[in-house]
Order: sequence, then structure tokens, then C-alpha cells
Amino acid sequence: MTPEQHFEALKTRFHEVALLQSAADALEWDERTGLPAKAGEYRAAQVTLLRGMIHQQRTAAAVGEHLEALRDSRLADDPTSDVGATIARLDEDYQRERKLPQDLVEALASATVLGQQKWDAARKADDYAAFQPALSEILSLKRQAAAHQQTDGQTLYDAMIHEFEPGARSADIAAVFADLRNQLVPLVESLQAAPRQPNTDLLRRDYPIDAQRAFSRFAAEAIGFDFQRGRLDITSHPFCTSLGPDDSRILTRYETNWFPGGLYGTMHEAGHGMYDQGLRTEWYGMPPGSYVSLGIHESQSRLWENLVGRSLPFWKFAFPHAQKAFPGALSDVSLDELHFAVNGVRPSLIRVEADEATYNLHVIIRFELEQQLVADELNVADLPDAWNEKYRQMLNVESPTFADGVLQDVHWSAGLFGYFPTYAIGNLCAAQLYDAAVRDLGDIETAMAAGDLSGLLGWLRKHIHRHGRVYDPNTLMQNATGQPVNSEALINSLKSRYEPLYGVGE
Amino acid sequence: MTPEQHFEALKTRFHEVALLQSAADALEWDERTGLPAKAGEYRAAQVTLLRGMIHQQRTAAAVGEHLEALRDSRLADDPTSDVGATIARLDEDYQRERKLPQDLVEALASATVLGQQKWDAARKADDYAAFQPALSEILSLKRQAAAHQQTDGQTLYDAMIHEFEPGARSADIAAVFADLRNQLVPLVESLQAAPRQPNTDLLRRDYPIDAQRAFSRFAAEAIGFDFQRGRLDITSHPFCTSLGPDDSRILTRYETNWFPGGLYGTMHEAGHGMYDQGLRTEWYGMPPGSYVSLGIHESQSRLWENLVGRSLPFWKFAFPHAQKAFPGALSDVSLDELHFAVNGVRPSLIRVEADEATYNLHVIIRFELEQQLVADELNVADLPDAWNEKYRQMLNVESPTFADGVLQDVHWSAGLFGYFPTYAIGNLCAAQLYDAAVRDLGDIETAMAAGDLSGLLGWLRKHIHRHGRVYDPNTLMQNATGQPVNSEALINSLKSRYEPLYGVGE
Repeated sequence: MTPEQHFEALKTRFHEVALLQSAADALEWDERTGLPAKAGEYRAAQVTLLRGMIHQQRTAAAVGEHLEALRDSRLADDPTSDVGATIARLDEDYQRERKLPQDLVEALASATVLGQQKWDAARKADDYAAFQPALSEILSLKRQAAAHQQTDGQTLYDAMIHEFEPGARSADIAAVFADLRNQLVPLVESLQAAPRQPNTDLLRRDYPIDAQRAFSRFAAEAIGFDFQRGRLDITSHPFCTSLGPDDSRILTRYETNWFPGGLYGTMHEAGHGMYDQGLRTEWYGMPPGSYVSLGIHESQSRLWENLVGRSLPFWKFAFPHAQKAFPGALSDVSLDELHFAVNGVRPSLIRVEADEATYNLHVIIRFELEQQLVADELNVADLPDAWNEKYRQMLNVESPTFADGVLQDVHWSAGLFGYFPTYAIGNLCAAQLYDAAVRDLGDIETAMAAGDLSGLLGWLRKHIHRHGRVYDPNTLMQNATGQPVNSEALINSLKSRYEPLYGVGE
Repeated sequence: MTPEQHFEALKTRFHEVALLQSAADALEWDERTGLPAKAGEYRAAQVTLLRGMIHQQRTAAAVGEHLEALRDSRLADDPTSDVGATIARLDEDYQRERKLPQDLVEALASATVLGQQKWDAARKADDYAAFQPALSEILSLKRQAAAHQQTDGQTLYDAMIHEFEPGARSADIAAVFADLRNQLVPLVESLQAAPRQPNTDLLRRDYPIDAQRAFSRFAAEAIGFDFQRGRLDITSHPFCTSLGPDDSRILTRYETNWFPGGLYGTMHEAGHGMYDQGLRTEWYGMPPGSYVSLGIHESQSRLWENLVGRSLPFWKFAFPHAQKAFPGALSDVSLDELHFAVNGVRPSLIRVEADEATYNLHVIIRFELEQQLVADELNVADLPDAWNEKYRQMLNVESPTFADGVLQDVHWSAGLFGYFPTYAIGNLCAAQLYDAAVRDLGDIETAMAAGDLSGLLGWLRKHIHRHGRVYDPNTLMQNATGQPVNSEALINSLKSRYEPLYGVGE
């Protein structure tokens, strides 16, 4: 076989893998949009079978043989070409995945599907004890998997992070987080003590769900989500999933008396969906058509949710539409009042509803707790107490329920340990990317205020989306922004938005 | 290997087949409940891959070896036992399916997924020409498949019917249909000329969609559909599908100004769903846990839709709820007026909205047309003219659009030739089963008028559902009703309901 034939054989196989993968993802999407109460066990069996088949296909000996033949061939000469990067990334994936025994992969697939069902029921019943055995089981399986995949110098937790943020290490992340916290804490304190405070009560008025759905769809369309290639649905915990090159599904939840929940849930997930929609479809399921890391994925969602969605230019455009959609709630409200309200900073219980300033503290709490769980320094039974203690310390809030405390996030029930830190990395990258776009494009905010947000999306398509996994996340950020990932842009962005609103320093 | 070990190996394999089958069905359910416009092609590729894998699994040489070892073993001694029937039915399936080449199976899967998308678009655009090439392609592939599977004495069309109604032959069906038509035509004529006529205009008042959804759900629950093991959604063409032993999906469509559409669509599909829910879950995907034929499946839907849903006892119970749900439309309407209105008989265009009396004429038209298409006596290009001609002859109606004419049904776009006659068989069986239940249970209508419909469902569970495919359809009907399938019960049922309402013979 020529190198070209080996490469074609790999492409054919990974096309089939992508079909199976997206089919399994479709079953999981369906599971979270209204699966009948008693259908969970069978659904778990369906997903388990498909995930097992996917793992077999990706780790088959034939894949190793093709990669062996390609590794030193001329096709691998340029690792920044689509073909060269494909060979390099698939080789890395293959080496890593074949370390996992098939039975462990299947056990994990089953435990995490059932775990999410247990979590959902436990959250509804506000009963941590009902979830605890499932969590213990998942944690134990994840530790076994990490032990198989751990490389020299990696902690077990580092091996888990690698799955989401290739090459990142917990010690480095801890250093960045310390830096971030050092700058955030005084900022939050100054805002809490500031002369002007937002009237966030107006966000708790009556916002009918049907109107929220229509307005959320309008906002997602306005920022560039393509509804010909995706849809928006309701679920209990917002997420985004790709069920094919032209099928991005975003999901949010609505509360009548909390306007930002549904809207920013939608804008956040639409940001993820627009990244997926910007990947090159002809490479779907292959490294050049895949996202590079969860941190970069999150940078796309946070950029549209916060840098755009909470900006004054966006609201100059969107406010008249909002007043029309919610005449009962917004007829006596001004643009400036609403803009200030959606930029309210207050330590709170729920991560996904937290403001930008305190959000990273929620992430740091989870980052610390899951490190302890994985290192066996914290028992699963003691997790709720540890959770509550950290929330008291860092945010000075206390949840009266498990549902709004330790059970608020789906992640651990889905086996996602090492995933939370990518949220803060996403915040850092979002601010850096926005600054770089403004540097390259000049004034984008005048057009934004007139409802044209295409410039920013075009810049992201060119500098982030179209590259897929061709470069590693650090190189991609360096190329796009001229800098390594750091906290300066985020802190500057928060200060420049908050300080005039709150009258800090006046 | 012992016979028991061969049987266990078969069970394990068919458990996996059922998982893949229900996963593919889930993708098709999703395709018909809001797939993004541009996602169709990739969805077709996903389903094609899964259907190909299913066919490979079902026709693998290993299956033949297990069946070979079991065929003359003691486990096959009693063909009416669960185990014996499993061996017999799987053997029949295997012999039939392995006649189909893998590439033809995949071509059919792909053509019919794309065909349904083309049909949906063509129907929306009212453009038959846009659908014609897809239909030609599907018909050609179906004829090839039938040529592979045809047995001695079967026409190509008989081989197609066999897939849905095992053992049925077109010549026999034509004879029953002639008999039915001979009795129906004078009945319909007498009703058209009758002294009293229903006020069906009241069904065209304003019935808000949200209230219809709630009332349809209420009706489905009242007749016994288990929402813990199923759900109700909206689609363009009502259907029912089983995505697991505890996951029956029913789908309907609503029009504001046509009350019976959404309600009877729901009751019809709920009847199908209740059959699926009554199959034994421990045999899911195996013959004892599978439906026996489409005719029997349809008998369940028609029984609940018509024999129950259009009866006076049902409306005695349901009418106060309907008045509460639709105060604007029904506050000045009496029980008798509504009951008469939902029993309106009038030749019309749309099969799924046709009354019971004329419905079978819609079926006979399709039965005749598809026989001609399959026998190459009618060209696909000439189908719309032939369709219109038959509607003029038999029902004296003419469709101004393709959408309400030849494009009204999804079936042919999904490759379902030989499927339509099972609808009329279902009507015949429904009436026979209802009579037999009354014969066995005595008065069930008093309880029904009080909202208790459990007696009838229990009788169907015992005499139909729990037997799965253990008996052939004819034996099952003979055992349940004491008679072979015939038209007497249906004609009697229609006359006894219609004649007093219309004042015929007074």
C-alpha cells in the first residue's frame, strides 16, 4: 500500500467512527430532552454498545498499522498541514486510547449514562445519598482509567485533565488560578462597596417562557448561530452537542422569574455551537475538523455570552427587541438600567448563573475538590461538607439544598473529572481573543450596536475555527493573539466594564 | 454446544441487534421531530451504517449454524412455546433475509431515508416532479429486493406484502376488498341521502393547539397509554415507534381549525403504542416480544381510535373534559352533537382524516395503484393522473394540490409498498376483536362511560399482546375471536353506530 492508500483507509475508518459517535451522541441528546422515566436502563445499554464499538474501531490493530506506515512517510513531513496534523493527532490518540482495556471503556460508558440518570433523580429529590454510590463507582473507574493512561511526571488528575486540555498540568493551572484569584478578590470587594449598585430585581419580574424562547432564538440568530444547521431545545442542564457536520444542538433552560438564565444559557451554548459550525465539514470527525480543546471551546461560549452579550453595544441593538418581547417586564426600564442589571456582581450559589467576576471562584472550588477526590484525600461521603465549607470560605454563601449545592452540576455524574478548570481557561482566552479581534479589525462595536456581529464571527472563523486540531491550544492562542494565555485581558475587560457602571474610583 | 447454549448465543446476538435497531429507530424518530434543514444527508449516512450492521448481524453465518443445530432439537418440539416459536420465526426470517445482498440493503436504507426527506420537501413545495426521481429509485430497489425474496406462486407484490403481513396474498386481499366495497358503497350512499346530517362545522372552530396537546395527552392516558414508558410529540405525518422495551413514541399533528386531526391521530398512535407496551419486555427484540403483523398492529390503533374513540360511551366520559379544554368552541355544543359530528361520513381527500366508512376506499385506491407500479403497468410519471382518476371514480373528489393528493402519505417514500392493505385488514380485525371482548367480558360500556377503559385493554393484553409472534396472525385471530378474518363485524359495527345517528331506516 502507498502512504496515500494508508491515509484513505484511515479516513474511511474514522468516517465510520464519526457516524457511530454522532449516533451515540444523538441518543444522549435524546436522553436529556424528555426520555420516558422508565426508559433509562435500555438507553444506557444502547449507548454502551455503540461506545464499545467506537473504542474497538479507534484502537483496532489496523489503525496502528496504518499509522506505523504513515508516521515516517512524506505525508507526515509537515505537521501543520491538514494531512500531517491528522497523522500526528491520530497517532497521539491511538497511543493513549489503546492503553484502556475494552471492559473498562464499557463499564465507564454504562456507569456514566446511569450516573447521569441517578444525578438527575437525586437532584430533583434533593437527595445526595441517592447519588453517592453512583459517584463512588464513577470515580473509581475514572481513577483506574487514569492509572492506565498516566505518563511520566503526570499525576492521576493530570492524566484526567489531558483528555480535555491536551498537555495542561494541574500545577501550572493552580499557579494561573492563584494569580487570577489575587486580582479578582479586590475587584469584587471594590464592586461590593461601590457607590452605585444595579437593580437586579428587574431581572426577576415576569418573563413568560414562550417569549423567552423566542427572544433566545432571536439572540442566537443575531450573533450568528445557523438554524439551518442546528436547533435550540430545553433541558435541565444547558449543553451543546454536535450530531453531524450540519447538526449542532444547543439546549438551555428557562425560569419565568429569572431573565438571564435562559438568554445567557442560549448565548453561551450558541457560542459553542458556532465553533462547531465553523469547523471544516469536509474534515468532520478528523483532527482538522475537530475542536482543539475544551478551554478553547469554552472561550467561544464565554466570548459570546459575556464579552458580547453583556456589552453595551450588544444591548444598544438588542434592547428595543427585548422591550417588545417583554412589555410587562421592561416597559419602564431604560437601556442603561438593563445593561447595569445584567452586569450585577454578587457572590451566589449557582455556577452557571454566576457573574463573570465571581464565576472563576466557583471553578476554583471544583478544581480543588476534584483534585482531592482523585488523590483520595477526600471521601465521596464527605464531599457535601467540603463543598459547603469552600463556598463559605471563598464566596460567603451557603446552599440550603444539595440541589443548589453539590448536585448542581452534571459533570461528575458523567465522569467529567478535570473538566472544570477548562472553564476558567476559556474565560482567559475569550478576553484575549476579543482584544486581538479589535486590534485586527478596529472598531467593531459601532456595527455591533447596529445589529451586525458578523465581523467578530468572521475573525474567529479565520483564527480559531478553521484550524481545528492542526495546532495545539497554546500555539493557536499565540498565533491568534500574539501572546501566551494570561490573565491580563480578562482583568482589564472586567474593570473597564464594571468600574464605570459601579462608579468605582469616581 | 448443547441446544441451550445455541439458544443463549442466539439470544445474545439478537439482544445486540435489538439495541442497534432501536438506536437506528431513535435516529429516524429524531429525523421526523425537527432535524435541522441541512442535516439530512449525514443522518441518512448514520442510519445506513446502522441498518447495514443490523443486516450483517441477522444474516451472519453463525446465526444459520445456531438455527441448524436447533431446528430439529427438543427445544423446537413445541412450536407454540416461547422457545419453539423463537426458533421457528428466526429460522423463517433468516431464510428470507439472507436472500438480500448487503449492498442492496444499504442502498435501500439510504434511498428511503433520503426519499422521506425529498418527500417532505416536495410535499411542502407541492412539487411532485421534485419527488419523482426518488420514488423511481426506491421502486426499482424494492422490485430488485422482492425478486430476491419471491417464493413459488408469489407475485413480486406478494413478496412485498409478506414483509408486513406474513403469508398474505394479493389475490385473497383483492377478494376481501371487493366484498367490503360491495357492502360499504350502499352504506355510504344511504348515509349521504339520510334525513339527519351531522354539523361537522363545529369541529372547524378555534381549538387552540396548546389545549389540543393537553387534551390529546389526557385521552391517551385515559385509554391506557403509559407515559412512564412513552411520550407524545409533534410531527408532519403521525406515527408510532418503539425505541426500547419501555420507550414507545407516539407522534401526531395539530391544526387549530380541525379538532379530530390531533385527537384521533393521538388515539390511533396510542393504540399502536399500547400494543408495543403490552409485548413482554423480557422478550424484547425476539419473536415472543415482537408484534405479529401490521394488520394486527393496525387493529389495535383502529380499535382505540374508532371503536372506542368515536363511541357514545367514550364521549359520555370525555365530553365534560373536552368542554373544559375548549370552552370557546364547545360551550354551546351538546354531547350528542359532538358525538354525531365525529361520526360524520363524507368522501374526502386525506386518508388519515377520512371517516371509517370511506377510509377503506382510500386504502383500496393505494392497493390498486401500487400493484400496478410494482407490476410495471403504471409509470411513476403517470402516477398523479392515475391517482386523481381513481379518486374521481371511487370517492368523487379531486385534489387541487399534489400535497393533498399523491404526496399525502409518507409510505412510498419510505419504501413501504404492500403496506397499505394492512390498514383495511386492521379495520376488519378491530371490529372482530371488540365484539369478542364484549362477548367475553359482558357490558364494558358502562365502565367506559365512567372513564374506566381498563377491561378492554386487559382483554387485548391477554388475547393479543402477550402472544407476540408465537402464533401466525390468522391463528391468533381465530383463537381470540373464534372466527377467521371477515367483514361482518366491521359492517355491523358501522351500521349500528351510523344508522341511529343518521336516522337511516326510520
